[in-house]
Amino acid sequence: MSELQQRIDFIKAIDGLKEVQRQTLLMSKSRYENSGEHSWAVATFALTLADYAKPGTDINKVIHMLLLHDIVEVDAGDTFCYDDAGYEDKAEREQAAADRLFGLLPSPQAQQFRAIWDEFEAEETQESQFAAALDRMIPILHNLNTNYEAWIKNKVSYAQIVQRNQKIAKANPELWDYIHTRVRQAVDSGHIPEG
Amino acid sequence: MSELQQRIDFIKAIDGLKEVQRQTLLMSKSRYENSGEHSWAVATFALTLADYAKPGTDINKVIHMLLLHDIVEVDAGDTFCYDDAGYEDKAEREQAAADRLFGLLPSPQAQQFRAIWDEFEAEETQESQFAAALDRMIPILHNLNTNYEAWIKNKVSYAQIVQRNQKIAKANPELWDYIHTRVRQAVDSGHIPEG
Repeated sequence: MSELQQRIDFIKAIDGLKEVQRQTLLMSKSRYENSGEHSWAVATFALTLADYAKPGTDINKVIHMLLLHDIVEVDAGDTFCYDDAGYEDKAEREQAAADRLFGLLPSPQAQQFRAIWDEFEAEETQESQFAAALDRMIPILHNLNTNYEAWIKNKVSYAQIVQRNQKIAKANPELWDYIHTRVRQAVDSGHIPEG
Repeated sequence: MSELQQRIDFIKAIDGLKEVQRQTLLMSKSRYENSGEHSWAVATFALTLADYAKPGTDINKVIHMLLLHDIVEVDAGDTFCYDDAGYEDKAEREQAAADRLFGLLPSPQAQQFRAIWDEFEAEETQESQFAAALDRMIPILHNLNTNYEAWIKNKVSYAQIVQRNQKIAKANPELWDYIHTRVRQAVDSGHIPEG
């Protein structure tokens, strides 16, 4: 098989990401978001918020990570970030998916893409920490702009939101302050429970 | 309004791209694709096919273009690439949309993003020519893998496909050869009319 065919087979395989439903409503509230369109939105968010990354952050590496960060969901499905039970075997399911999907590519691209995804997952570099923060921030923006419907449906509390999203504060306190102020308003107005 | 709020307002506004339907079936044929998830797929395609760009091509600029290339459709809608009538006022509709959407951003980012989009539209640089080629190539891959259903539905002929997709050949003859061989098979097997 030609290397071009291998690359096209990879693109065909990850098309399934457009059919993985997330627990996030579109801004219009017309339906739930899928992981393919989310990946576009969060990569574009990174380009738009590049000035909010720490000095020296390679924003293009952040974008590459965000284009690839969810493709394992084609096999492993989406795990809602407030779902403790789902998180138990998430890593195992996603490693197997990464083996299969990145393995469709020719060498050395298979290893290069896998390294980008591994770096995102490890959250040890400032690029992966910024990418992870934006990946958490964007569904919060959706919740804040859709009357908190997905949070209410899933009984998400203020305490959970604060605990699960500290990586936003770690990446950039200004971004967290923006989010936290608005989440606090949702609690104070009685839409979201405290704990 | 803070610059962060302006950037978030931009992200909120372009969320509508997830609700613009294209004339392309998903690889699974379960439904038609939207322009948001298409933008993710074609940006990821650029990362995957970076080696097929002409030497010296800035692939990150290509990716930035592809993340932004369709956002004007939030206001202007998608124009099917074989729709001659729709193309008549496409440029005018899209310029007005670009004025509004990029105008949501603070300066100088508004001008920077507009320049990326203008460069994509002009197709004069090798980055924009490669981006445009991939943007044409990916729906062809979908048609080739879904029994040509969208082409048949829209009565698209071989002559139209060849005429509308010469930019693929211009960007990389190997990519065009891959596509052309398979389109020719669709004609020779009687699925697509010659002219």
